[in-house]
Amino acid sequence: MMKVKGFLGNGIASGIKKSGRKDLGIIFSEKPADAAAVFTKNVVKGAPVILGMERIKTGLCQALIVNSGVANTHTGKDGLKRAIQTTKYLSGELKINEDLIIPSSTGIIGGKLPVKKIKKAIPRLVSGMSENRLTEVAEAIMTTDKFPKYSYRNIMIDNKKGTIAAMAKGAGMICPDMATMLCFILTDININRGSMRKALRNSVNLTFNRTIVDGDMSTNDSVFLLSNGYLGNSAISGNSKEYRKFEETLTDLNLELAESMARDGEGATKVVKIVIKGAKSEKQASIVAHTVGTSLLVKTAFFGEDPNWGRLIAAAGRSGVKFDPEKLEMFFDRIKVVKNGMQCKNEADYKHIFKKPEFTVTIDLKLGNASSYVLTSDLTFDYVKLNAHYRT
Amino acid sequence: MMKVKGFLGNGIASGIKKSGRKDLGIIFSEKPADAAAVFTKNVVKGAPVILGMERIKTGLCQALIVNSGVANTHTGKDGLKRAIQTTKYLSGELKINEDLIIPSSTGIIGGKLPVKKIKKAIPRLVSGMSENRLTEVAEAIMTTDKFPKYSYRNIMIDNKKGTIAAMAKGAGMICPDMATMLCFILTDININRGSMRKALRNSVNLTFNRTIVDGDMSTNDSVFLLSNGYLGNSAISGNSKEYRKFEETLTDLNLELAESMARDGEGATKVVKIVIKGAKSEKQASIVAHTVGTSLLVKTAFFGEDPNWGRLIAAAGRSGVKFDPEKLEMFFDRIKVVKNGMQCKNEADYKHIFKKPEFTVTIDLKLGNASSYVLTSDLTFDYVKLNAHYRT
Repeated sequence: MMKVKGFLGNGIASGIKKSGRKDLGIIFSEKPADAAAVFTKNVVKGAPVILGMERIKTGLCQALIVNSGVANTHTGKDGLKRAIQTTKYLSGELKINEDLIIPSSTGIIGGKLPVKKIKKAIPRLVSGMSENRLTEVAEAIMTTDKFPKYSYRNIMIDNKKGTIAAMAKGAGMICPDMATMLCFILTDININRGSMRKALRNSVNLTFNRTIVDGDMSTNDSVFLLSNGYLGNSAISGNSKEYRKFEETLTDLNLELAESMARDGEGATKVVKIVIKGAKSEKQASIVAHTVGTSLLVKTAFFGEDPNWGRLIAAAGRSGVKFDPEKLEMFFDRIKVVKNGMQCKNEADYKHIFKKPEFTVTIDLKLGNASSYVLTSDLTFDYVKLNAHYRT
Repeated sequence: MMKVKGFLGNGIASGIKKSGRKDLGIIFSEKPADAAAVFTKNVVKGAPVILGMERIKTGLCQALIVNSGVANTHTGKDGLKRAIQTTKYLSGELKINEDLIIPSSTGIIGGKLPVKKIKKAIPRLVSGMSENRLTEVAEAIMTTDKFPKYSYRNIMIDNKKGTIAAMAKGAGMICPDMATMLCFILTDININRGSMRKALRNSVNLTFNRTIVDGDMSTNDSVFLLSNGYLGNSAISGNSKEYRKFEETLTDLNLELAESMARDGEGATKVVKIVIKGAKSEKQASIVAHTVGTSLLVKTAFFGEDPNWGRLIAAAGRSGVKFDPEKLEMFFDRIKVVKNGMQCKNEADYKHIFKKPEFTVTIDLKLGNASSYVLTSDLTFDYVKLNAHYRT
């Protein structure tokens, strides 16, 4: 059972989704928690993101309310009003200040948030809150996800066993800079706010921002980190050993969730790690990795289990980064297949790798020592099917 | 019948394609023609492109030899040798200097160019050349194309009827900066070389570089313009009325071919023009148009005939261009569907537009007066099918 001291959760069906599935979730901290967040960089932001960006400024949050089914985006002033209204109703039920409540929404863009349904469901949502029901939040935020995504890590801090737990959703529109994905991370470990923000930012850059399904970026992406300090450790700060342990553990947890998003990428049958090494800078490596990881020709080749290294090189070549194609090397897992820009191994000796559900493509640009990577998935019939008919 | 004075063509099956279809074409000018070309910007370039870039420097070309089936890319020094060998064989047959011959190749990346087959086929290729067989060149260069692409325009220059004719191929990997596409443009109109280059560059920017199928850019893209001056007009130069007429006609011709490539985009069922207006600069408009036109979520919505304006705005929002989503307007053909960032029309009143095989989406960013556009197609099951199994 996934639990974090002092945090309660619940997820119920409130009727927003026509299917009758769970669509409303809550996370509640017994006392106001220190809070940090990372939001979408899309210039178009959903109403809950606009409100959340404002409220997170206090550095405190006691409750997160999240619905799936309707994204509450492109809804103008009315959408913002509805987001605020939701938190007002919840603040009345919880008897806490509404500024301590942040809403999130995910689902169809453009529809109105059904506040009456949410108002009606709030008493049931709150009365059912339990430390045993955090995983139900993960169920309530699913849209095209095929499975709920949550996980946790325990770490020893001051000889006490602390917990970091996370609930996430995301299957489509996932790309660097975080696309329709939500992630709520809770910890009982005491950590000062500056360190929280830094750890969150660094871990998001190394995980969610490197996960590509289709290169789109949603209007509602948000990652929250809440700490209630219930562990009673002395607050983590600076670049201490404890801070590094915290950041590493958080990154490891987020990587697990990012990988499960790539695995659940709409219609995906494979998760492929694209590693670019031998670049002059990490940024340069990252540009090439992103160009290769979003190439439709590359992604369909993965689906077809076709070890077409030429498409991979052609995608790298249009990234805008100058390299000498005649020096380039490529590896499928650990097998070198391209040397000096040409095939150096029989296809029979590496074809099997493309049949695996997970593998790594490494391209060495031979320009320098920097590297980066992205996680991507294959482009399949089911991706097209899901997205051509999502609304109907 | 498409003819241009002084130019001969032919297209035959030489056995490069296993299917037995035409795979080898030639264009021959009775005298060395003035020549200009635009090549791929991919840093990875096929052997024929490397050779073509070198030979075009003389500004003269008398014969183009082109094969489909094998791209002769990622083939290193051996590939370059094979490209040169092909032109050597042809120069012997035609009895012209080999430097006046430029080869092109399109097809599978990485395979070796079968020079023996080509050598064997050259006598037949040359002996069959005729002014009536330019369209057979268009057939010989098809790869995943469903139909051959060629067209021509007549214009009056010095009271004489001149011709500009073009043969092209391209269906997949088509994107701005020209992806696997070849285009051979022939004219009998006398025009000086500087003006030829300028007219070609301008027309390519307005046409092929605005056509998106999947955002990939090939290693072998080339557009050639050959002028033999057989019309006998005084050479077009500067910014004269004749120059403007020439450039406009060339652009119009290239637009027709670019549109037919988008229509033939791998698996495409629709061609959609994405117009971005109200930008601060043409470049800004072009960035947004490209981001929207390559978005998988947008392209699958086109396939699903789902008028999901929210996906269009979300794609614009991640382009990196700052705009105020609450001022944005959107039109489907001439119907305004979004005003001040919100839906302003019932879906029933615009749903029919997405059922058309061709339509226009216009987004007004309300930032300034500049505009740009791209042509894109929908992302379909057949796109995935074709590209997952192209090699097998």
